[in-house]
Amino acid sequence: MLTTDTVPKLAGRSLEIDGRTVQITGLAKGAAMIGPNMATMLAVILTDAVIDPQSAQRMLASATDDTFNCISVEGHVSTNDSVVLLANGASGSDVSTGRAKDLFTTGLCHVCEDLARAIPSDGEGATHLITIEIHGCANREDARRIAKTVANSPLVKTAIAGADPNWGRIVSAAGYAGVQFDPMMVSLHVNGLLLYERGVPVPFDGAKVSQSIRDHRDTSIVLLFSEGSSSARFWTSDLTAEYVRLNADYHT
Amino acid sequence: MLTTDTVPKLAGRSLEIDGRTVQITGLAKGAAMIGPNMATMLAVILTDAVIDPQSAQRMLASATDDTFNCISVEGHVSTNDSVVLLANGASGSDVSTGRAKDLFTTGLCHVCEDLARAIPSDGEGATHLITIEIHGCANREDARRIAKTVANSPLVKTAIAGADPNWGRIVSAAGYAGVQFDPMMVSLHVNGLLLYERGVPVPFDGAKVSQSIRDHRDTSIVLLFSEGSSSARFWTSDLTAEYVRLNADYHT
Repeated sequence: MLTTDTVPKLAGRSLEIDGRTVQITGLAKGAAMIGPNMATMLAVILTDAVIDPQSAQRMLASATDDTFNCISVEGHVSTNDSVVLLANGASGSDVSTGRAKDLFTTGLCHVCEDLARAIPSDGEGATHLITIEIHGCANREDARRIAKTVANSPLVKTAIAGADPNWGRIVSAAGYAGVQFDPMMVSLHVNGLLLYERGVPVPFDGAKVSQSIRDHRDTSIVLLFSEGSSSARFWTSDLTAEYVRLNADYHT
Repeated sequence: MLTTDTVPKLAGRSLEIDGRTVQITGLAKGAAMIGPNMATMLAVILTDAVIDPQSAQRMLASATDDTFNCISVEGHVSTNDSVVLLANGASGSDVSTGRAKDLFTTGLCHVCEDLARAIPSDGEGATHLITIEIHGCANREDARRIAKTVANSPLVKTAIAGADPNWGRIVSAAGYAGVQFDPMMVSLHVNGLLLYERGVPVPFDGAKVSQSIRDHRDTSIVLLFSEGSSSARFWTSDLTAEYVRLNADYHT
């Protein structure tokens, strides 16, 4: 595997908890063989909070589920990846229970999300970080499955690389995710612009959407369903000829 | 979707059944948005056999399951694809039952397989047709799931495009297919050459394997497990920069 990390993956939050300042600092590496479930990826998160190992493990598992397990570069799961949380207690602030726990958990999720997003943003050959938001599903697992299927479609990923507002590829990827939904209630926004509403493509300014994709490294895909109130987010990179070059030219 | 069919997709068999000659002729189109479950693909199969509609439907469904539903180009399932079997009965040979049915079913499977293989072989930007054979699984569903996961890994597909005998990418793709197996019993051959045996990479002549991949449009990946006696085959194309170019430059 080539290591092509080109961006420092650092994130941190400073929290005020019960009159004390608690620091959370994280660092990560990884740009390829990135699929949810984890990947050729390392992340270490440091904090001066006081926290017992069981609570730390639970908080980290939960934060990882919504962040590091919601990213992909090419969807190829790796055999080795780790997220580690180290706490030395130097702040004297115990965050294992109560309101302190809630504050710390939120901060930890923010740090994990910053690091997780940085990985596909720096994905091999990537020119876009694509954020896929799914709303209105019956449960979180359904929402996440749709998000992941859209994220791993090479046709969606090449469309974004080419700044093509190709609603058909996005909607059809959602359609083969294996989740039941009413297709006549599906709507789609790309970069905040409505492309598809209640099962039907709407007239939109294709040149404007293309320009918006071209002008921003971040691309937003939002799919709305009417099956319930569950949501999921997923981050992936686009698929470029440079990705293929990096992975076809590299020899073991 | 670009239609980039560059190879005529035609196949046929002539069968001797009870002293009569029965023809099966098939034609297909499709080179992209190809994922199992079917895809932007059309296939029409013609025969002069006598056959009742119910038997024809059953035979075609069974043949399709092992052929057209075992191919992918990029794994993106399409919303519209069809396989049609038309029988005009002109041969006078009834193939709805008995030994005639067995002979006809075999012939139909061969025609479907020829057509199905032709599609990823002609996949957008493809320089290799990759055949993935899985043996020794507990059941056919497991075998097929592993085959499909390996087939849809961009890292495997770019490795073959680059003629890289990258056993790690193939074995790790099998590992994330979601099928339980003993990793210490896995072996791998590429183009008939042993790369990995019972959980361990073996010394092999990398230049020879690379040259073999480079010299042949057909690449064979065979993975052996020790969980049972079920097998599956799957056909896919490699992933090249040309595929990305075709799908990123194409605008709706």
